Amino acid sequence: MRIEKDLLGEVQIPLTSPFGAQTQRAIDLYPIVSGKALSAYPDLVLSLLKVKKAALLTNMEIGEIEKEHGQAMLSTIDNLIMTLPDVIKTYFPIHAYHGGGGISTNMNMNEVIANLANRDSYRQSFGRYAPIHPNNHVNLNHSTSDALNTACNLAIQKAWGRLQGRIQQLELGFEEQANQWRHIKKISRTCLQDAVAISFGDLFDGYNTSIKRSHTLLSQDVESFHLVNMGGNIIGRQGDCSRRFFDSIIFHLRQVTGNKAINRTDDLIDSSQNHDDMVRFASNLDQFALGLIKIAKDLRLMASGPQTGLGEISLPAVQQGSSAMPGKINPTIPEYLIQSCMQVSGHCHTVRMTHAHGELDYTPWQSVVITNVLDAMETLGTAIQVFTQYCVVGIQPNEARNAQNLETIIPTMVSIMQSKGYTYASSLYKECQGDLDRIRQHIQGDNVL
Amino acid sequence: MRIEKDLLGEVQIPLTSPFGAQTQRAIDLYPIVSGKALSAYPDLVLSLLKVKKAALLTNMEIGEIEKEHGQAMLSTIDNLIMTLPDVIKTYFPIHAYHGGGGISTNMNMNEVIANLANRDSYRQSFGRYAPIHPNNHVNLNHSTSDALNTACNLAIQKAWGRLQGRIQQLELGFEEQANQWRHIKKISRTCLQDAVAISFGDLFDGYNTSIKRSHTLLSQDVESFHLVNMGGNIIGRQGDCSRRFFDSIIFHLRQVTGNKAINRTDDLIDSSQNHDDMVRFASNLDQFALGLIKIAKDLRLMASGPQTGLGEISLPAVQQGSSAMPGKINPTIPEYLIQSCMQVSGHCHTVRMTHAHGELDYTPWQSVVITNVLDAMETLGTAIQVFTQYCVVGIQPNEARNAQNLETIIPTMVSIMQSKGYTYASSLYKECQGDLDRIRQHIQGDNVL
Amino acid sequence: MRIEKDLLGEVQIPLTSPFGAQTQRAIDLYPIVSGKALSAYPDLVLSLLKVKKAALLTNMEIGEIEKEHGQAMLSTIDNLIMTLPDVIKTYFPIHAYHGGGGISTNMNMNEVIANLANRDSYRQSFGRYAPIHPNNHVNLNHSTSDALNTACNLAIQKAWGRLQGRIQQLELGFEEQANQWRHIKKISRTCLQDAVAISFGDLFDGYNTSIKRSHTLLSQDVESFHLVNMGGNIIGRQGDCSRRFFDSIIFHLRQVTGNKAINRTDDLIDSSQNHDDMVRFASNLDQFALGLIKIAKDLRLMASGPQTGLGEISLPAVQQGSSAMPGKINPTIPEYLIQSCMQVSGHCHTVRMTHAHGELDYTPWQSVVITNVLDAMETLGTAIQVFTQYCVVGIQPNEARNAQNLETIIPTMVSIMQSKGYTYASSLYKECQGDLDRIRQHIQGDNVL
Amino acid sequence: MRIEKDLLGEVQIPLTSPFGAQTQRAIDLYPIVSGKALSAYPDLVLSLLKVKKAALLTNMEIGEIEKEHGQAMLSTIDNLIMTLPDVIKTYFPIHAYHGGGGISTNMNMNEVIANLANRDSYRQSFGRYAPIHPNNHVNLNHSTSDALNTACNLAIQKAWGRLQGRIQQLELGFEEQANQWRHIKKISRTCLQDAVAISFGDLFDGYNTSIKRSHTLLSQDVESFHLVNMGGNIIGRQGDCSRRFFDSIIFHLRQVTGNKAINRTDDLIDSSQNHDDMVRFASNLDQFALGLIKIAKDLRLMASGPQTGLGEISLPAVQQGSSAMPGKINPTIPEYLIQSCMQVSGHCHTVRMTHAHGELDYTPWQSVVITNVLDAMETLGTAIQVFTQYCVVGIQPNEARNAQNLETIIPTMVSIMQSKGYTYASSLYKECQGDLDRIRQHIQGDNVL
Repeated sequence: MRIEKDLLGEVQIPLTSPFGAQTQRAIDLYPIVSGKALSAYPDLVLSLLKVKKAALLTNMEIGEIEKEHGQAMLSTIDNLIMTLPDVIKTYFPIHAYHGGGGISTNMNMNEVIANLANRDSYRQSFGRYAPIHPNNHVNLNHSTSDALNTACNLAIQKAWGRLQGRIQQLELGFEEQANQWRHIKKISRTCLQDAVAISFGDLFDGYNTSIKRSHTLLSQDVESFHLVNMGGNIIGRQGDCSRRFFDSIIFHLRQVTGNKAINRTDDLIDSSQNHDDMVRFASNLDQFALGLIKIAKDLRLMASGPQTGLGEISLPAVQQGSSAMPGKINPTIPEYLIQSCMQVSGHCHTVRMTHAHGELDYTPWQSVVITNVLDAMETLGTAIQVFTQYCVVGIQPNEARNAQNLETIIPTMVSIMQSKGYTYASSLYKECQGDLDRIRQHIQGDNVL
Repeated sequence: MRIEKDLLGEVQIPLTSPFGAQTQRAIDLYPIVSGKALSAYPDLVLSLLKVKKAALLTNMEIGEIEKEHGQAMLSTIDNLIMTLPDVIKTYFPIHAYHGGGGISTNMNMNEVIANLANRDSYRQSFGRYAPIHPNNHVNLNHSTSDALNTACNLAIQKAWGRLQGRIQQLELGFEEQANQWRHIKKISRTCLQDAVAISFGDLFDGYNTSIKRSHTLLSQDVESFHLVNMGGNIIGRQGDCSRRFFDSIIFHLRQVTGNKAINRTDDLIDSSQNHDDMVRFASNLDQFALGLIKIAKDLRLMASGPQTGLGEISLPAVQQGSSAMPGKINPTIPEYLIQSCMQVSGHCHTVRMTHAHGELDYTPWQSVVITNVLDAMETLGTAIQVFTQYCVVGIQPNEARNAQNLETIIPTMVSIMQSKGYTYASSLYKECQGDLDRIRQHIQGDNVL
Repeated sequence: MRIEKDLLGEVQIPLTSPFGAQTQRAIDLYPIVSGKALSAYPDLVLSLLKVKKAALLTNMEIGEIEKEHGQAMLSTIDNLIMTLPDVIKTYFPIHAYHGGGGISTNMNMNEVIANLANRDSYRQSFGRYAPIHPNNHVNLNHSTSDALNTACNLAIQKAWGRLQGRIQQLELGFEEQANQWRHIKKISRTCLQDAVAISFGDLFDGYNTSIKRSHTLLSQDVESFHLVNMGGNIIGRQGDCSRRFFDSIIFHLRQVTGNKAINRTDDLIDSSQNHDDMVRFASNLDQFALGLIKIAKDLRLMASGPQTGLGEISLPAVQQGSSAMPGKINPTIPEYLIQSCMQVSGHCHTVRMTHAHGELDYTPWQSVVITNVLDAMETLGTAIQVFTQYCVVGIQPNEARNAQNLETIIPTMVSIMQSKGYTYASSLYKECQGDLDRIRQHIQGDNVL
Repeated sequence: MRIEKDLLGEVQIPLTSPFGAQTQRAIDLYPIVSGKALSAYPDLVLSLLKVKKAALLTNMEIGEIEKEHGQAMLSTIDNLIMTLPDVIKTYFPIHAYHGGGGISTNMNMNEVIANLANRDSYRQSFGRYAPIHPNNHVNLNHSTSDALNTACNLAIQKAWGRLQGRIQQLELGFEEQANQWRHIKKISRTCLQDAVAISFGDLFDGYNTSIKRSHTLLSQDVESFHLVNMGGNIIGRQGDCSRRFFDSIIFHLRQVTGNKAINRTDDLIDSSQNHDDMVRFASNLDQFALGLIKIAKDLRLMASGPQTGLGEISLPAVQQGSSAMPGKINPTIPEYLIQSCMQVSGHCHTVRMTHAHGELDYTPWQSVVITNVLDAMETLGTAIQVFTQYCVVGIQPNEARNAQNLETIIPTMVSIMQSKGYTYASSLYKECQGDLDRIRQHIQGDNVL
């Protein structure tokens, strides 16, 4: 173990650990619970590395970091970016949320970069912080406030790439199903009661329309994450970073991320006060998840049976359904999706409840927000993928049952009503006491249909 | 109009209105929205009247209100209690929640009592506040903090009387249904897939067990409202009321309410800091409501059809079901219950979200809490009554359909499994490719069942 | 009383009531609870009247309603539109939500129009339904499904007009405050701890930016309500209304409402399956409300005192603050806003929870959804108006206190850090043991600042 | 790899893996997301092992498992119990929730026990399932439904032991703080405005009273988990297990767990229909968490500063507070608690939302429920421990600031009001225009205090 000192005193750190006192204090204070290690969020750590790289390149360009130091740090950062999956657990071992608005996350990054750069370029041992210092150099011209906020935005964009691909597969899945079974009619239901005939094409198209609407709205939300607050360090006021840094950082951020759409938000104070863009995105994720629950429950209901349920469709059999009932097959994939969506809804609830607990000039709940947003996205994306692959693409309508369902009283009555009016239909219904055969005889006599 | 003055200046009040400046300011500031007038909560106003009466009797007993003044106020209060339905709208016209922790509610009451007592016993015009003064006399030895909190407790107890009666009717309804249809077997389902046979007695008993469990827990919650914080005015510290008032007020509260179970809570500071008893009660109401949604959705599902659904039961037809489909009957009563339960859940959400927003020595959200608790109770109670009367007591199993459902493959397989083991049953199932007729032939040969 | 008959039997209706059997059944089944009468939602009733008018004009144009009958109904509808505030309570007395997806609301309207038209143009007594019939004529070519859905959309647009005006006033209020006090600096805080100086202009601009962002997003949401599903009656399939009705109804709806932006949604089946546009709008209202809680709590905190709190601003005194503490003034207006926002959140919770409970081809929870959306809008709008008028426009910074707050250690340390680096500042802080006077002496010696 | 077959076909399984086809299918279907592996819930896996052991001992006692087979399984189970931490990741690699109501969890356990017993006692290779069969022997006389439900109950009791210990430490912490600082007075506040004097003893006692109330209620909830549904396999009807198994299983469960309080629930059908005991427990956990947010926010507020905030208390400094502001110390421990409580609230939201989505005879969401309950308990317990150790026990009142706060106008006015009445105090306040010095001069002249 080595000893490092900070304003609060001494801290013991494993000799081989490239992080420093502030990271170690966070490790000592906050045990990992329920898998919420920072290293469980590689999108976030990678994004923060990219922010650090862009800040460094800016500081080098404007001459506030001298070239040799800059090259040392740059080499370290590039190396970390390349090898992140291998080192993330040992280099970034802190709990994913903690107090102080994410400062431990930022300092974990600063300390690791400083120590590795000093070691690799200057043969310094960990803990020396010379010539490269975590605050003076790695953190130069920015702070936790803008760096972490920006990293959150980048991380969501990255995760969205995966999630969106999965949503598109789901859309494709329902589109194919709609086209494949458009020729098969089924009964529709309102209030779970028999209504009129539609086709499976109508049904699946309807699902797809709602999925696409959520998709579009989530995409629009994600666009808001192109607006970042680099240059608005501490609490977003002007002048807390060098003017030339302010002018160049966005350019470098675009270069480093390859994303030309990145821009600076107009009101940096607002960015420090609020994180409602993430809350809104979470709300829309939640709503999308709730809508998928509806669809998954529909599929289960239409597949209920095999004999005493609706039996209108079959879902692919993927698992045996009971440890006690041989032959039983359950709709486990929709049920996995439903539970995943409930899990997503819990993550989004956490995000949403932070909103009213913001206060004054800085919202300190960003860590619990971003980790739950990323958890929600990953949980939802994975469940959608499984649902598409193992359920949606294999849905099979039961033609006989659906045909038979259409030869029933309510669809018949609607036809009569549409040709002869509500009063006629209603009287006929009453006269025949709702008996379908008698109604049919009547209308054949009357040549109604 | 007459003019009254307070520390903030002059206020114009209608000549005939028995309330005063503080009430009028609340009227001017807070328009009535969405039916949330204080007068919409008669249980609360009546309970506050009783608190005022108990405080008055105590103050008279200990000699801090002289007898003649006391008699004047007493007569006014008793009169208000008797005629409340007639005067509540004109005497208590303020919005039901407002800032400051319910002070306008308390002062509305104080001003009305003072003005009426002065008019009726001393021929004083409204606004004189002599000899009876709203603060010096009506509010003597207590404050908004303890009086309103105590009134909330009494109001919930009163509303619970009604709600409990309705819950008992619902229990009775399902009990009768269980007994009436215990002889009819039906198929059970897990994951919406066919499972084994149970009886309608089992099913309805199960519903009742869960309803009774909620009932018991809500009753226990309501008992916590017997503990009141009279004597703990302002923020609950000792000594802010006369010692003798402190010693006698509980006795008088019991007398006035006829409720011997009333007692003082042990920690009056805690009573000022927190209102978690109401939050907990709301959470349990919410949970009860969510459980009723499950039951109502079950009934709708079992009644789905008439031809293409499960069709296991019929619900009483109470309304025509469609403006376009003659003969259609919808399960509107369960749907009304479901929506009412969703409404209840919204009220309880409001209550719950106040909890984390408490602060320091006094929770200022009591008005929005109590009104939503009372709304939730009334909405739930009414919906339960309608559901019991127009749906539960008239449920009718469809014997033929239920009998037929039992002659299906899964119940058969379970019987085989239970007599011959899972491996045998499973192999048989495979060999016969899940065909029920072939399975039956086999087991007749094997004499399995 | 008169007697009417429907498929279920006889119903007793007051002789003078222009509604019929289906309305009366709803009255008998669903008692009014917590102010949720249909008549409490005039925007909705008015919008449904306009839908009926547009449908009628279309039916007249295409010749499916003969001219004289059409004129009779038209005159009735126009008269109802003009006199709605006077008649809404007596003509539309049903509970605002009920089972069956709002059918009682639609039939209440159909029956009232039919009876009044028959009486006023044909001297028929109520209950005859000839020559004008509620279903055959008033409801012609549409059904509850499309008419009510469309009316919900129109009602939200109407309510949004009011709410938006109030939001604009709030924005103006904060804009004026920002401009008025931009010259006054204040300390900012992160994690409630002293941070750096900003101006009141920064602070209030930040609030406004977040308010405007919500405003913009809500406006976009409202645009989605221009897409209506007229022509998609029953469950949205093609052909359940006359083709010519389908082609002309949108034109007439634009005429009747004066809103050229109205259009038909592309997927009518989806419109029947889902109402996620309302859910999304409610989520965004909720989020806006939660953000306002944050702002209101900030104001309370900055106004805390008068002596032992932050005391940075004064809020207008609008009410006395205590029945026991003379001189006490509470921030009752922000507290009213906070509670209103909690109430709004409850309404939106109800809306949101309907989403996952949709099922199959028709979402039956529309009535509880629209009434809670309208309640949320009205509650929020009123609270915003009160907050703007009685609080925001009168905020006064306490110049002396704010100036004094800036002469403290953290703002000083940030200045030192920015000119001399983190290591220097940090060492100085340590050396002087955080004593501001000693630090100042040092830096004067060093000519740092 | 080896090949196993089930009703659905062939499955490839790693040769060394002791689980079988059903486990492998679950692995293949449900990728691990966000740390939700079954192995992350050792309390649950251990509890299920104990259930299996109790079932086995019962089956041996009643002679339905022959002795030698029984001994083989017993030895396997005991060995698994002892070595669980070492093998849990490799033996129980499935995702923690999946469809079908937890069947994969139960079958993972059955297959592991069967394979290991066959290997260790009969030198059989994995996949033979002879002589010990997962369903015929390990699962004998019970099913997923009762075994998993019972294991959930046991797991919660186990986790509660830890959580309760931490709550007790927190209570002790506040008790010691109350006693240590009872002699120091502080100003109280209502609506964030100055009110009357209380002591730090009052304040911390108040906190403790609310914590203890939650503690008591949670304890009562946990008692409900002593009631288990063993013997109620499949859906809880009588007769799906051997009568003698039914009579003896509770005895053996008590023996195996060492918990004499375990008993069978009265209504086994209800146990299959509902899991509201877990929902209620989660609601009460959530409420406890929300109450802790209030306390943590109070501490932050009272510790705000160091110079421009309330500054009434100091919290232990555990971390540097800023990467940009030297000397800044944030209340990170309360903030960690707050975020943990928000995380807990998210878990409980997921649990709560399952409740209304139950259906018919079996609630299929148990896996997502129990994992979120256990996550909530662990997250809350850990945060409480950290909060107690690093914050509560080190709170220090700032005596000078608190003393000075009491010499302010509102406490003075309350004293005057209490000795001279509200009218006198109020007039005096008005006359002196709220100026404390003038008021003091007056009352000295009047000898009021």
